[in-house]
Amino acid sequence: MVSEDELVHAIRKVLSGDAPGVVVGVGDDAAVVELGEGQAVLTVDTMVEEVHWDPSITTPHELGHKAVTVNVSDIAAMGGSPRFGLVSLAIARETPPAWVMEVYGGMREAAETYGVALIGGDTVRADRTVLTVALTGRVPTGRAVTRGGARLGEAIVVTGALGAAAGALALSKAGPELKRSLGTDWERSLMEALQQPVALVGEGEALASAGATAMIDVSDGLALDLSRICEMSEVGALVRLEDIPVAPELRELAGVIEVDPLELALHGGEDYQLLATMPAGAFEDARSALDDRFGTTLTVIGEVTHSGLELERPDGSREPLAPSGWDHFA
Amino acid sequence: MVSEDELVHAIRKVLSGDAPGVVVGVGDDAAVVELGEGQAVLTVDTMVEEVHWDPSITTPHELGHKAVTVNVSDIAAMGGSPRFGLVSLAIARETPPAWVMEVYGGMREAAETYGVALIGGDTVRADRTVLTVALTGRVPTGRAVTRGGARLGEAIVVTGALGAAAGALALSKAGPELKRSLGTDWERSLMEALQQPVALVGEGEALASAGATAMIDVSDGLALDLSRICEMSEVGALVRLEDIPVAPELRELAGVIEVDPLELALHGGEDYQLLATMPAGAFEDARSALDDRFGTTLTVIGEVTHSGLELERPDGSREPLAPSGWDHFA
Repeated sequence: MVSEDELVHAIRKVLSGDAPGVVVGVGDDAAVVELGEGQAVLTVDTMVEEVHWDPSITTPHELGHKAVTVNVSDIAAMGGSPRFGLVSLAIARETPPAWVMEVYGGMREAAETYGVALIGGDTVRADRTVLTVALTGRVPTGRAVTRGGARLGEAIVVTGALGAAAGALALSKAGPELKRSLGTDWERSLMEALQQPVALVGEGEALASAGATAMIDVSDGLALDLSRICEMSEVGALVRLEDIPVAPELRELAGVIEVDPLELALHGGEDYQLLATMPAGAFEDARSALDDRFGTTLTVIGEVTHSGLELERPDGSREPLAPSGWDHFA
Repeated sequence: MVSEDELVHAIRKVLSGDAPGVVVGVGDDAAVVELGEGQAVLTVDTMVEEVHWDPSITTPHELGHKAVTVNVSDIAAMGGSPRFGLVSLAIARETPPAWVMEVYGGMREAAETYGVALIGGDTVRADRTVLTVALTGRVPTGRAVTRGGARLGEAIVVTGALGAAAGALALSKAGPELKRSLGTDWERSLMEALQQPVALVGEGEALASAGATAMIDVSDGLALDLSRICEMSEVGALVRLEDIPVAPELRELAGVIEVDPLELALHGGEDYQLLATMPAGAFEDARSALDDRFGTTLTVIGEVTHSGLELERPDGSREPLAPSGWDHFA
């Protein structure tokens, strides 16, 4: 049995105690940092084994990587940049130390990708693995983009394409023979979207600079996350079905298992694309900034209305869009 | 079944979104705050049902209160002051919403006590309750007191008295007839020490101002926590047994069940008293500051030595002091 202090010593070695701005790193009662100019952005997310990940398809390295990335995505959705992370890991008594170190390895890799210094945390025993990451970032004073700033007539935009993570989930549930068949590029690409999501930090800052008035990351599905912007902004939204950027792999998936690509794009979760509103006149500059600097597409999918959430079909007919995305409690 | 969004709405009402310094509070992708002058102090702690609390003796209100308090204590042990808190709560599917609201009520009460604004978090499903609190505080630039600054010859001091929480734990394990007998003042006082610990924020700041060179909160037992100061400071410690402030209730407890009060004071955890080192000449000012301003006692229990951890008995004999306090993994 490894003791708490022994594990803390091992973990300390993979953490980054001497990064810029770290005054007191791992191994004290609390960490002390210099945040520098601007306002602090704070977020915390918990992932629970078998609720947020399936241990049969997610490696410990992927788990650690994703736990950091989804928190970074929350900061990106405010237009902020992540700086410092604390980890709280509850593990079962029988968990091998090597497994814990792989989780930390994944966290460290993601942390390096996003310029985050992992500077401490807590490891405790439980009967199931629960991984919490708390991130602190910063944003220029007064420049955070909330969910509450959307205004009537503005364009609704989204980065990248939607539905790939939900497609991967559908694929992984489709039976062991399909799970093992991940031979084609599109299958690998889908699974990567689910297992190795990317947080769009630079894109979030660029959208904020370009004049985004409201922003959220698409973690629970386009429809549900858009309904949250509408609720906080006290507005409505009209989404044009033909303009929704559907992940291209979903067309191929639909040839193998019975899925509706559009349904996955509208209601599938865990895309971590950024959904924002902005004055229509700001779109072209925002689009070219994201394309030039990050190779990321930006698409107008609709516009802000007075009230309600509606979907417009290509024939011009409209229907209510139910915000029935991914609900952790459903 | 209550949905995630419904629970989030209910929780939002008990949180403090409009406290000073809160730019974006509950209900967005991340919180945004103004930390003000100084450096940021960051900490996170996770409590797991049946590992960190016994649901048969801890009420949800006490649980919430304690989860905030133990984090505040970590910031106090740096000489900092807490400002903002984020909560991540994993609950079982069958958990009644009323139970969750009582946990939040306890967190809110503690938050108000310590001037903390609870500004967000995350609620997810699990099969056992896991409560994580992440706190952000501040400390004057360059004034954080780490575990690593103790110097040869300095006094080792501790606030208050030790062992009461461990005594309460022993009492609660001593059988149902004793558990229900909590009729006397000393019994209630012991149980309060365990269930409603107090974080010594003002005392931590005063000790920092008075010249404390190293500091830690006694969460895992005096011996183990002192060994952590020694390790980080690369020094040793001599503790005089007769000078250890033993919680007075433990003498009465020892008349009822078989416990060694000194053993509880040396190795019992969860006291949340502050253990510090300081130049001997600084002690008298520190003692009177804590007494005058907070009614808190401060006691010299020994001194910093070259190496090793030793206990001196009243007859002058010395023996090694094993740092075998509370280890969450033992």
